[in-house]
Amino acid sequence: MFEPWLIAPISAIISILVGLYFYHYVNKQDSGTERMKEIAYAIEEGANAFLRREYTVLTIFVLIVATLLGITLPEPIWATTEPLKNLALSVAYLFGSFCSALAGFLGLSIATKANTKAANAAKEGLNKAFQIGFRGGAVMGLAVVGAGLIGISIVYAITGDPGIVLGYSFGASALALFAKAGGGIYTKTADISADLVGKVELGIPEDDPRNPAVIADNVGDNVGDVAGMGADLFDSYVASIVAVMILGQALGLVEIPLVFAGLGILAAILGALTVRVGKHGSPGRSLNMGTYITCTIFAVLTFVVAYYLNYDPRIWGAAIVGLIAGVVIGMTSDYFTSDDKAPVKKTAEASLTGTATNIITGFSYGLHSVFPPLIGIGVASAVAYYLYGLFGIGMAAVGMLSIVGLIVSNDAYGPIVDNSRGIAMQGALSDEVIRITDEMDSAGNTAKAITKGFAIGAAGLTVIALLAAFQERAGGNITFDLMNPLVLLGALIGIAMPAVFSAMVMLGVGRNAERMIAEIRRQFKEIPGLKEGKQGVKPDYAKCVDIATIGALKELMPASIVAISVTLIVGFIGGIQALGGYLAGTIFSGLLFALLMANAGGLWDNAKKLIESGEHGGKGSEAHKAAVVGDTVGDPFKDTAGPSLNTMITVMSLVASLFAVLIANYNLFKLLGLG
Amino acid sequence: MFEPWLIAPISAIISILVGLYFYHYVNKQDSGTERMKEIAYAIEEGANAFLRREYTVLTIFVLIVATLLGITLPEPIWATTEPLKNLALSVAYLFGSFCSALAGFLGLSIATKANTKAANAAKEGLNKAFQIGFRGGAVMGLAVVGAGLIGISIVYAITGDPGIVLGYSFGASALALFAKAGGGIYTKTADISADLVGKVELGIPEDDPRNPAVIADNVGDNVGDVAGMGADLFDSYVASIVAVMILGQALGLVEIPLVFAGLGILAAILGALTVRVGKHGSPGRSLNMGTYITCTIFAVLTFVVAYYLNYDPRIWGAAIVGLIAGVVIGMTSDYFTSDDKAPVKKTAEASLTGTATNIITGFSYGLHSVFPPLIGIGVASAVAYYLYGLFGIGMAAVGMLSIVGLIVSNDAYGPIVDNSRGIAMQGALSDEVIRITDEMDSAGNTAKAITKGFAIGAAGLTVIALLAAFQERAGGNITFDLMNPLVLLGALIGIAMPAVFSAMVMLGVGRNAERMIAEIRRQFKEIPGLKEGKQGVKPDYAKCVDIATIGALKELMPASIVAISVTLIVGFIGGIQALGGYLAGTIFSGLLFALLMANAGGLWDNAKKLIESGEHGGKGSEAHKAAVVGDTVGDPFKDTAGPSLNTMITVMSLVASLFAVLIANYNLFKLLGLG
Repeated sequence: MFEPWLIAPISAIISILVGLYFYHYVNKQDSGTERMKEIAYAIEEGANAFLRREYTVLTIFVLIVATLLGITLPEPIWATTEPLKNLALSVAYLFGSFCSALAGFLGLSIATKANTKAANAAKEGLNKAFQIGFRGGAVMGLAVVGAGLIGISIVYAITGDPGIVLGYSFGASALALFAKAGGGIYTKTADISADLVGKVELGIPEDDPRNPAVIADNVGDNVGDVAGMGADLFDSYVASIVAVMILGQALGLVEIPLVFAGLGILAAILGALTVRVGKHGSPGRSLNMGTYITCTIFAVLTFVVAYYLNYDPRIWGAAIVGLIAGVVIGMTSDYFTSDDKAPVKKTAEASLTGTATNIITGFSYGLHSVFPPLIGIGVASAVAYYLYGLFGIGMAAVGMLSIVGLIVSNDAYGPIVDNSRGIAMQGALSDEVIRITDEMDSAGNTAKAITKGFAIGAAGLTVIALLAAFQERAGGNITFDLMNPLVLLGALIGIAMPAVFSAMVMLGVGRNAERMIAEIRRQFKEIPGLKEGKQGVKPDYAKCVDIATIGALKELMPASIVAISVTLIVGFIGGIQALGGYLAGTIFSGLLFALLMANAGGLWDNAKKLIESGEHGGKGSEAHKAAVVGDTVGDPFKDTAGPSLNTMITVMSLVASLFAVLIANYNLFKLLGLG
Repeated sequence: MFEPWLIAPISAIISILVGLYFYHYVNKQDSGTERMKEIAYAIEEGANAFLRREYTVLTIFVLIVATLLGITLPEPIWATTEPLKNLALSVAYLFGSFCSALAGFLGLSIATKANTKAANAAKEGLNKAFQIGFRGGAVMGLAVVGAGLIGISIVYAITGDPGIVLGYSFGASALALFAKAGGGIYTKTADISADLVGKVELGIPEDDPRNPAVIADNVGDNVGDVAGMGADLFDSYVASIVAVMILGQALGLVEIPLVFAGLGILAAILGALTVRVGKHGSPGRSLNMGTYITCTIFAVLTFVVAYYLNYDPRIWGAAIVGLIAGVVIGMTSDYFTSDDKAPVKKTAEASLTGTATNIITGFSYGLHSVFPPLIGIGVASAVAYYLYGLFGIGMAAVGMLSIVGLIVSNDAYGPIVDNSRGIAMQGALSDEVIRITDEMDSAGNTAKAITKGFAIGAAGLTVIALLAAFQERAGGNITFDLMNPLVLLGALIGIAMPAVFSAMVMLGVGRNAERMIAEIRRQFKEIPGLKEGKQGVKPDYAKCVDIATIGALKELMPASIVAISVTLIVGFIGGIQALGGYLAGTIFSGLLFALLMANAGGLWDNAKKLIESGEHGGKGSEAHKAAVVGDTVGDPFKDTAGPSLNTMITVMSLVASLFAVLIANYNLFKLLGLG
């Protein structure tokens, strides 16, 4: 008989095939003028240089971790009766890292091609250009879900053990942490350094090709938004499925999340194929319509299949609760960063009385913005729980994430068309072309509101499901009572971790920028004719990319190591209860800071743009200067620290789950008889 | 036989008597020249105007709440068999508000007198001036503990019911919330408005008597630092004792916290009497020495009494753990705000590359700074728990807070001598006098590091004890398991509350400042000769004080009502479990934000001062401008939102405890059969 869960690998393969078709479709398009090709090539080169360097360093790291995992887990190699399991876990971990890296590589490589092709196609009108931009993004989206799910399927098919799939998930997440936080440090380093030496010290314009950091800066958008966002959702996606598989073990429901995920991919593919702008359509509406169509297809498909397979309808209900919550959270987040709503308008207005008021106002609205999503996550998990217990909460996360293929597509569309606009302007294309690329770009921002809501909501539900999975792995019958001193101690340490991690990466940007600034200054000093813009003299772009990359990895390492090692220290000292409290604490404070930073950052950015559009004195006014500072403060919030937090929490939760059994048996408090 | 707990009222009375003696001592000193008297009088008048207005509004509020409490608690008046208890609770609440207001009034009234007297005494040298400054602060310190403990004793003596004492505590805390948050909004409103119209628009110097807002600004320091800090610690002090009384009920240990608190007062009085600067002593060392002496006296006294009364030595141990934790937390907080340590130095250095880097660096170190105190609170509560369970955690809070009489004295000393310096400068006293007031002022800042650590640590332990008290009141045998969906939902809502509350009060400052700025502009426009500084022309200072005061109360009300009503809504919908999770969530996120905001604010302030002392270009340089913006951003962090959070959490916890029984019986989830 056909095993239902095989929907998962089949859908995953279809997804990869459709992704390859889109890749081919985009790739065969014309890249435009020589000048355009040149710009696009430089960005592509830079992005590749970044990835090459990053993956070289990460290979070493990944191999070390794989060895350590192989030695210690599931049981220490010297004490186990099943050494093969250790090998399996270790290989699963490697495989997870590889799949995550592959998805990132594919997405980034097409994104850096699609930008110029979309700009060129805009000469023929919106329809074609939009299609290229969207399909370029969809390569990333389909690669993410395809690689994620095929990987899970393979590991599960071979081992049949969700515990080993956990290793796969950890591999994916650890790599995602580097991609997000490393990319985040990288992109802000390049941004700040390019501006400071170029605009401030030498007075040359933004994006001037004489600036040695200009390519590094352009690369940054792709590295942060495309590769980073993809890796982030890849990791939530895989982690949520694995968490629910573990929760389903005792209930005999291990394969249900695989079925739902497989159907989600089909829904996303169908949705992606319907996305196109009609004669008088708007690109923004098309993107959102694609999301709604995908949601509807998913709801209907899963209902039919669940009915046919005799699944409890409440399981289906829990998944749909998650899906609805994702959309609702997205819509409310939109309120805080839209330039026609009070928060952005008031922050722009506050810029009239100076920088400090701009920052205080934006920060305050950022604080306000945490309320609706937290309520949304809380209500969704409570409803899902009443439907089907902790497994229900997990299914809500799976439901929300099942359509992630389309979400990532929409999201990757953003930086592609943003780059298109830049290339159209630098390549001196016609006003009509620039207007079209503008329209496409603003559609990307509209769609982003909903996708961002999904990402945050999904991360929230996923980490809650992971906490439950940790509990299950640790024995299942334990509670994390807040009045237990170990839980409380763990929670107090846990709530500090996201703050410390954020501080480390943000301070890392500053230190990294110092190194890069020194290099930029050196080039201007030592390369004759560079400053004057002499014909044929080119700066050493690659060197800047390299410095930013190495520096980003260097700054990221301590933060990641602290995150992982504090988790293990808390566990091996305080035991399961302390670790449970600790994870809950990191979830609470991580969600809080992730929301605050993402929304405050977006809000400051849009307040600046609102002023640039002519309000409150427009560009160059005092209000504008204040808003620029606000935006600069918001940059590391929204691009470096904020988005890394989700991944950090996922990594910590996975580490805890992996070591759960070991920790339950060996910890200091237990040894002392206090645990 | 002599009841041991009578130590409490006896010590409280002694404390009040010594306070009156200090009041008399300060009051009989000479206030100096006419000019000095004039300045001091204006500040005093303004402070009184603030208090008068505030207390008028609050009387109405307090009467309404007292009526509501009397109708509904402990049981609804229509359902109770003991209506007298409702009356008792209502009266206890009124009494708590009254005692808190009285302590604030006494402290503020002496502080606004002591400033000029200390400045005048500085003519005769440091010794006398220091003594006046310190004893002025000690009036506040001794009034706080005296009024707090005598109140508890009276209510307990009459009713013998810790549940009614809870009403007293709620009265004190609700008033403290207004004093802290209202004072915080007030002081920043006046500060921003005075600067913006005076310095920025008209270019007149700071503290210029032509500025209608100048007195309001001077008043602000006293209102925020003296009255606010006093009210904050008054409320933690009372709440911790009440929480432990409730925890002690089941164990038959209700009176132990009263005994320890009474001994703490004696230790603080003895400590305060020893504080003096010797021939070659430094004021900073004298203040800290006073703290250490008080700690030692307390440790010895309580040990002897506990031994004599046959108390379990582990109870004594728990109290001492709290005391030690307070000192340690204070020392580590000091690191993040001292101008000779890395955080302040790096932030000052970052100002060289602009405003945004100053803000990001300061904010990042603020994030870092939450780590040590959270660990400290966590470890202290874990150790205390292992010594004597939840009662032990409460005793740690009592131990830490028992010496609060001296802590408040040291803290109130700060703004007094800060004002002394201002008066000495405005009154054109000799350089030697200004040098002495300078020395006294910087000693205040040194001492503040430890006192601030105490305040935060004490608040942390107190709210944990209150959470335990809530659990006890709700039935005792329930758990707050994080995997329970109601606890989780509550926690997710809870962690959002401190963010929302902070946002509301910070945005309130902005709105309030707008109103005040309009008034300042009006006065400059409509009062002939004011701008030119014509002899005899005076602005209407009182009007500005009044506007800032009314505005502060107006902005504060919605935030306070939201805090209290969301607590009740969560309780009456989700029941005890949801409310327990909610309280834990507010504690976690409240501590996080309180620490972040207090330390980042202090750090920015000191980075600015470091630059003003000549580093990185000194006053007027670009780095200085950047640091000034950082300091302005930090002001509402450290003076408005941050310090209100402790009190907000205490108020929420008390509301929850008061309504615990009612909520346990009537809540929506229980009615629906889900609770």
